[in-house]
Amino acid sequence: MESMVVMDTLWVLIAGMLVFFMNLGFAMVETGFTRAKNSVNILSKNFIVFAVSSLGFLVLGWGLMFGDGNGFMGLKGLFFLTGLDNSPNIGDAYNGVYSAISWTGVPLLAKFFFQLVFCGTAATIVSGAVAERIKYHAFAIFVFFMAIFVYPIIGHWIWGGGWLSGLCMLDFAGSTVVHSVGGWAALAGVLILGPRFGKYNDDGKPIPIPGHNLPIANIGVFVLWLGWFGFNPGSTMAADPVSISHIVMTTNTAAVAAILSSTIISWILLGKPDLGMTLNGCLAGLVAVTAGCAFVSLSSALIIGFIAGILVVLSVIWFDHIKIDDPVGAISVHLINGVFGTLAVGLFAQDGIGGVSSPNGLFYSGGFSLLLSQFTGIIATAFYVFLISLIFWFILKSTIGIRVSLHEEIQGLDIGEHGNTAYPEFLSRKPIYSAIGIDQGEGSSTVIKSIDKKENIK
Amino acid sequence: MESMVVMDTLWVLIAGMLVFFMNLGFAMVETGFTRAKNSVNILSKNFIVFAVSSLGFLVLGWGLMFGDGNGFMGLKGLFFLTGLDNSPNIGDAYNGVYSAISWTGVPLLAKFFFQLVFCGTAATIVSGAVAERIKYHAFAIFVFFMAIFVYPIIGHWIWGGGWLSGLCMLDFAGSTVVHSVGGWAALAGVLILGPRFGKYNDDGKPIPIPGHNLPIANIGVFVLWLGWFGFNPGSTMAADPVSISHIVMTTNTAAVAAILSSTIISWILLGKPDLGMTLNGCLAGLVAVTAGCAFVSLSSALIIGFIAGILVVLSVIWFDHIKIDDPVGAISVHLINGVFGTLAVGLFAQDGIGGVSSPNGLFYSGGFSLLLSQFTGIIATAFYVFLISLIFWFILKSTIGIRVSLHEEIQGLDIGEHGNTAYPEFLSRKPIYSAIGIDQGEGSSTVIKSIDKKENIK
Amino acid sequence: MESMVVMDTLWVLIAGMLVFFMNLGFAMVETGFTRAKNSVNILSKNFIVFAVSSLGFLVLGWGLMFGDGNGFMGLKGLFFLTGLDNSPNIGDAYNGVYSAISWTGVPLLAKFFFQLVFCGTAATIVSGAVAERIKYHAFAIFVFFMAIFVYPIIGHWIWGGGWLSGLCMLDFAGSTVVHSVGGWAALAGVLILGPRFGKYNDDGKPIPIPGHNLPIANIGVFVLWLGWFGFNPGSTMAADPVSISHIVMTTNTAAVAAILSSTIISWILLGKPDLGMTLNGCLAGLVAVTAGCAFVSLSSALIIGFIAGILVVLSVIWFDHIKIDDPVGAISVHLINGVFGTLAVGLFAQDGIGGVSSPNGLFYSGGFSLLLSQFTGIIATAFYVFLISLIFWFILKSTIGIRVSLHEEIQGLDIGEHGNTAYPEFLSRKPIYSAIGIDQGEGSSTVIKSIDKKENIK
Repeated sequence: MESMVVMDTLWVLIAGMLVFFMNLGFAMVETGFTRAKNSVNILSKNFIVFAVSSLGFLVLGWGLMFGDGNGFMGLKGLFFLTGLDNSPNIGDAYNGVYSAISWTGVPLLAKFFFQLVFCGTAATIVSGAVAERIKYHAFAIFVFFMAIFVYPIIGHWIWGGGWLSGLCMLDFAGSTVVHSVGGWAALAGVLILGPRFGKYNDDGKPIPIPGHNLPIANIGVFVLWLGWFGFNPGSTMAADPVSISHIVMTTNTAAVAAILSSTIISWILLGKPDLGMTLNGCLAGLVAVTAGCAFVSLSSALIIGFIAGILVVLSVIWFDHIKIDDPVGAISVHLINGVFGTLAVGLFAQDGIGGVSSPNGLFYSGGFSLLLSQFTGIIATAFYVFLISLIFWFILKSTIGIRVSLHEEIQGLDIGEHGNTAYPEFLSRKPIYSAIGIDQGEGSSTVIKSIDKKENIK
Repeated sequence: MESMVVMDTLWVLIAGMLVFFMNLGFAMVETGFTRAKNSVNILSKNFIVFAVSSLGFLVLGWGLMFGDGNGFMGLKGLFFLTGLDNSPNIGDAYNGVYSAISWTGVPLLAKFFFQLVFCGTAATIVSGAVAERIKYHAFAIFVFFMAIFVYPIIGHWIWGGGWLSGLCMLDFAGSTVVHSVGGWAALAGVLILGPRFGKYNDDGKPIPIPGHNLPIANIGVFVLWLGWFGFNPGSTMAADPVSISHIVMTTNTAAVAAILSSTIISWILLGKPDLGMTLNGCLAGLVAVTAGCAFVSLSSALIIGFIAGILVVLSVIWFDHIKIDDPVGAISVHLINGVFGTLAVGLFAQDGIGGVSSPNGLFYSGGFSLLLSQFTGIIATAFYVFLISLIFWFILKSTIGIRVSLHEEIQGLDIGEHGNTAYPEFLSRKPIYSAIGIDQGEGSSTVIKSIDKKENIK
Repeated sequence: MESMVVMDTLWVLIAGMLVFFMNLGFAMVETGFTRAKNSVNILSKNFIVFAVSSLGFLVLGWGLMFGDGNGFMGLKGLFFLTGLDNSPNIGDAYNGVYSAISWTGVPLLAKFFFQLVFCGTAATIVSGAVAERIKYHAFAIFVFFMAIFVYPIIGHWIWGGGWLSGLCMLDFAGSTVVHSVGGWAALAGVLILGPRFGKYNDDGKPIPIPGHNLPIANIGVFVLWLGWFGFNPGSTMAADPVSISHIVMTTNTAAVAAILSSTIISWILLGKPDLGMTLNGCLAGLVAVTAGCAFVSLSSALIIGFIAGILVVLSVIWFDHIKIDDPVGAISVHLINGVFGTLAVGLFAQDGIGGVSSPNGLFYSGGFSLLLSQFTGIIATAFYVFLISLIFWFILKSTIGIRVSLHEEIQGLDIGEHGNTAYPEFLSRKPIYSAIGIDQGEGSSTVIKSIDKKENIK
């Protein structure tokens, strides 16, 4: 008994540390996939996101998410961890209803740490989608708001004993709670912000803006993948040997299947195996299996991952086409596959497959009941998060403004927002600008200028 | 009892995650040690290697390695983990014979995850040696083959109750099973491929081709070193306090000894302490102590590491000299020191030194018996792996071809294989080409061209 | 009982691995914050530091630190772990006096590994401060000396049953033992070395020398932060659920508070939120909470972190002003905040707050007693470490010399010390030299030269 508390605590903390490390993963993916002139801004954003959301979640977010209250939110002991703790664990969380959960004995601060890094993850997803044109302080304010009024509310509905857990909606590690929440907030931001300067030519055709440092992006994806071994199996919140072994393998299997399918589909559609698609494919597989990692078999995970890898490639191309400019593909990875993964639970869930009891999905003679719950959860989350984010982005836009000036955007946010550049010694050019006949003006020397210069800035 | 299962499982999974993270290490070492124009290709290869080998090992590799069968391979329940599980653990694995091992209760999927990441490691070793000229899809096919028909066979012989375990050959964490298997397959590939264009001048003298990003290579080595703390002590497959503490320290000690010796020897031979040699020295020490980490004392580990650091420097220089062009030194690190480390067990093994019973080596009054077993294992592995790899590389060469065109090689595989570049914004030049009087043609601008241009491409 | 040994050992080893990984963090922070032309040297230094200090600590350092002896140092069984083991653990370490500690059963080699990586950390702190002008071999010798005669002595005083532990000075995870020891040794080195060429103009005004690769520096800080989750909670040396949960959260809270305060204060003082200050702020918060992480509340950690973030910004500016040239801000981070954090324990300590008994600090009705002990420890450490380091740096300077030639410094230490460059393919310029009207001469091409050339080298 006592020794189970020790092992559960070790597991929760170590898993939490792995999830914490995903901050590095996100920072590197976003930096690598965008332009050098915005790197300092992106790195700064990723640091401040975690700091601000940690503060917000400590002050009020945790209380709203896991405190006693009604089906919509916590209402008692809201501030600074002073209320009751209704956070879930595998021991009794998934036997039907989430409310009134008794705990394994893991100390409150260990559980808080684990939930905190999840909140930070949801917030940081937004960062990539709005990159390369958002004001630094406007973003920091949005994140603080999100860590209090967006993420914890959905978290309460699904993990904190709220109304969706009452419907027996299943989202084991957060395809919806974390990834699609981040995705909807990001989509709202992108719609209010509009595309980056130079992303579309006069005919409305998208112009590729290649990431400036793919080895760095690669570091990011491997670090995120490692982090997912905390994210998914750690969501057991208990060191259950059978479950965590099962979840590690469903997680890994979905990732490798998605690597293969995204590589193949990009090969077919784009003519060559595209590294960016492979990397986003890997992340898409991980996002998609997150909801069902404890409820589906290894072969189901293979199928889910395989579909996710295809979905993300089509989605990236489609969003580009309809002028939703998401520099790193965050919406395709986290929103589209967060939704898909949540639905997939309704199809592939098998009672007891990973040592956890759950309803069966449609493909395992469970009928449409679970699928309907999943669908309800997806729609409700979409409605709440998208709407409230849209409102908040709009308020920010109308007051302090959310987009940097065109001059600053062209010069790079590093200079404008931070007075600094990421690589002051390397000579560089910006291919995108020569492609649309524009000299960026930031040129590190007259020689570089004379190479790129074609016309004046529009 | 029950709580031991929990702790063993946690340990196996966490160690497996550390080994998984070595994928990042290999990707960074290889990228950093090669040229920028091939970085996208190398990063892509390292992703697809793990995906393909995961699939191959799941489908059939595990069954061949650990299923019931004869001394040569598993024969029953081969597909998708359906057979028996003869994978080893420290409880009874090294008391003489490996066969018929009863397990500690760690769930099958945890053990599978751990073995899977080992298989991926063996496959990824090949990647570095054949870098900068191999076709992407040819390499992916080779890896799939290797994950099924090469690695698991040797694995069965030594770890799966096969004939070498019957001879009591000792390879605790895989100096032979993982590293020299990867090394022999790499050597076969390099021999079939031939050296990179520009590596040797008209007189046959090797021309140094410096790696393009040493901080990235440095990340790789530290990440690999961290991963080795899963690789070696995790191979206990059980949370035995005495053994894992011992193995952590033999591993670390060999690494630091090899850092010192490789740095000193490169200082003496090359005139300055060479960072590339220090980095490969570190890896060499880790590879060499892998076979014996549980069987040798701390001072033996110090000696093994020290010798490994010298061996790798001499080996890199020697392979360069005999026109075996291995861009990252993978063969010197993994093959030469895998062989050395396996032999070293026959010299330095001490019964019970790390809490594990084993025969004594030559230096500890064990006579030549263990050394002979080690030698037999090395020869048998060399024979099987080198030969079958040679055949398979040859078949690939004769059918789809394994080497990119000269034009593509000069331009860089990133453009040819992936239609992408790793650093589209940075201005670069390729020193190697000016050294041999050649303009690379890839030049990012006419200014750069005019700097480098000397003659036309040969 | 037995199973506690397993869990304690797993925790100590895993925490030790995280601290080991801080080697990568330091290497990346230092590389990113300095110039490209010195990167190979910095990476080499960071490898050799850990190798040399591992060796020194194994041979003699551990014995001096934890062996039986007097209040000043260990005296018996000094070499190769042959003496008694007085290293602390949480079970009985902080109940008043440190001496005569009985252990939890964790194997000696696990404890040694954990202490070893701490020793390496102290040594590596020096590396950043003396960067860009110190001779490689002189630095390696200093580190060997430090790992034997500097770090273990202070370690003995505070953690090994020495006279400061007798005064009940509290330094849970090493704000003093590790960080300020590294800081004082660094300060001595910087004073003997003098500032880098070009750091001050003719009027004595400091000229900013920007780091060449901020994404790399960012990797470093996130890796260090992750490592701190081993550093602080691992210093329990036992898997106590309540304590380690508490310490993880005090550690994280101080870091995020410091990120916020350093960002805000740099925004106010420098006009924009400076990424370098945010990164050093984060580290400063972590250093400052290291002494008190087990003894202070979450809100105290918030305050300590917040102050640390402000302190580090003011300190960096101040050291620049008084011509103490510390390229990466190591002295501001580790010394200033190591001292502050140690003092803060005397103010904020609360008996039992993190499950550990301790005296109360001044703000919790403990009076000045603990504060006085802390102050005594700080002064004694300053006196011993600064003085002995100064002497040893001076001896090195008088014999083999510690500073590279002006020519080598301008050309970059990579060429002079290692015959290599970190990024041989990227075209680069060095802004600092154009700022002071100097052509660096290292120029990768005549084109670059003609851009930068203003005057001859002074």
